[in-house]
Amino acid sequence: MTAKLGIIAGGGDLPRAVAASARAGGREVFVIGLIGSLGEGNDWIGDFPHEMASPGAPGQAFKSFRREGVTEILLAGKVDRPKFSELKLDARGVLLLPRALKAARQGDDALLRFLAAMFEEEGFRVIGVAEAAPGLVCDEGVLGKRTPNDDHRADMDRGFAIVRALGALDVGQAAVVCEGLALAVEAAEGTDRMIERVATLREALRGTPRNRRGVLVKALKPTQDGATDMPVIGVATVERAAAAGLAGIGLQAGGALIVDKALVAAKADALGLFVAGVRL
Amino acid sequence: MTAKLGIIAGGGDLPRAVAASARAGGREVFVIGLIGSLGEGNDWIGDFPHEMASPGAPGQAFKSFRREGVTEILLAGKVDRPKFSELKLDARGVLLLPRALKAARQGDDALLRFLAAMFEEEGFRVIGVAEAAPGLVCDEGVLGKRTPNDDHRADMDRGFAIVRALGALDVGQAAVVCEGLALAVEAAEGTDRMIERVATLREALRGTPRNRRGVLVKALKPTQDGATDMPVIGVATVERAAAAGLAGIGLQAGGALIVDKALVAAKADALGLFVAGVRL
Repeated sequence: MTAKLGIIAGGGDLPRAVAASARAGGREVFVIGLIGSLGEGNDWIGDFPHEMASPGAPGQAFKSFRREGVTEILLAGKVDRPKFSELKLDARGVLLLPRALKAARQGDDALLRFLAAMFEEEGFRVIGVAEAAPGLVCDEGVLGKRTPNDDHRADMDRGFAIVRALGALDVGQAAVVCEGLALAVEAAEGTDRMIERVATLREALRGTPRNRRGVLVKALKPTQDGATDMPVIGVATVERAAAAGLAGIGLQAGGALIVDKALVAAKADALGLFVAGVRL
Repeated sequence: MTAKLGIIAGGGDLPRAVAASARAGGREVFVIGLIGSLGEGNDWIGDFPHEMASPGAPGQAFKSFRREGVTEILLAGKVDRPKFSELKLDARGVLLLPRALKAARQGDDALLRFLAAMFEEEGFRVIGVAEAAPGLVCDEGVLGKRTPNDDHRADMDRGFAIVRALGALDVGQAAVVCEGLALAVEAAEGTDRMIERVATLREALRGTPRNRRGVLVKALKPTQDGATDMPVIGVATVERAAAAGLAGIGLQAGGALIVDKALVAAKADALGLFVAGVRL
């Protein structure tokens, strides 16, 4: 029997998908939803044993997880950084805040590493989505009906080279390449906004929904251990890529997550994009 | 005596600065202004022997430069790609258009290399700004009154590492780094828009005009020979960096151009930014 899983849930679709996948795999799950981050569309949390907590109240999380018999922890979803001055702190939060602030100043990766270390210091084991919900991990090969052509494969190769070079410098996880030209490279703005700005480039450089060109690629940073922050796509990513005129999405097989694979495949088919997992 | 210099002038301040600097250095200058690109603020061209030409009329440029006794050519300034279907072509333009279109599809660098090769095939020597107007090249050391502190120097080092890695892949020439975090990386959108999006990131990650943090860096792509497309800054770059809350600008000494050094220094001093040339 697998250990009971505690999920700290931020925003977006990933926490729901992880919780559902883990439960479908036979695990008991207890979810703590982060106040201020879980956001809209959070009704799913009602389907699981759960409670809500302030991101400034780690003491509550430790206590609740222990009460529930949770031994493994997973952090998933987007966290909007609170204004620390307005943060509701418990006693442990007060003690840990200086280290959290220091980590936060170094970016999301560092903050995530700090949070994972904090739970491990309390005796919990922190695991990644690939372990808790292996069905979400991108496989090698095509999802849906469309297949990348040789131009798309060349653009994916170039995109992965860019993302690996950037990732080695801990910059970003994503890029858009169109017929050899790097249209956009992700840094602190995140993948969604990077995709959106492709549509604002002059039309000679990019595709359109009527004439799709270029690919989005996402891959693990070589600096990431993969446990806590794999790149993710979902239906909304496919919609954004479609709106930006892209021809498809290339993901690192074994190094990226797909939320709702069946829905992603159907959306990609409907909009005319490919989604391909590539072994790097 | 130095050869007479022919300048193909696109938009922005660089062509004016090059023409003025070359003439101040004792060179005769003849300018061909590109219709559709020279843009607003192009009155300066009246101070030099000149004519206007369509970017589709290379035959006219060859003929005029020969008539004027020009032997060396310099391409400078931004060129807005025309709609090729609306382009006014001369006979040579018709012949060269297929190659130009092919190069254009591969990005600005490729288009520029094609244009340089086109003039060289006609017997002209194509030179870079560093040769024609060495006074515009960024020197080592600080321009203006402010000096980067240790944090800024660390951010510049990280920024140059990012730009060199990206440049080796022919992606971009610029990045913004703030206290170790890569806020933005340049691809096809160009430096101006990259700087502008820094101001849209959440405030915890970046500086503000009241609390300046982070640096813009620009460096030559290792793939560029430096002759035709050095990175450029001017007064407007300082203003954009200031509006985005940056603390300063780091440039590759010997590998970047500064239009109007005295004005850039004065603007940086007035707005509270440093401008530093760093030998890589």
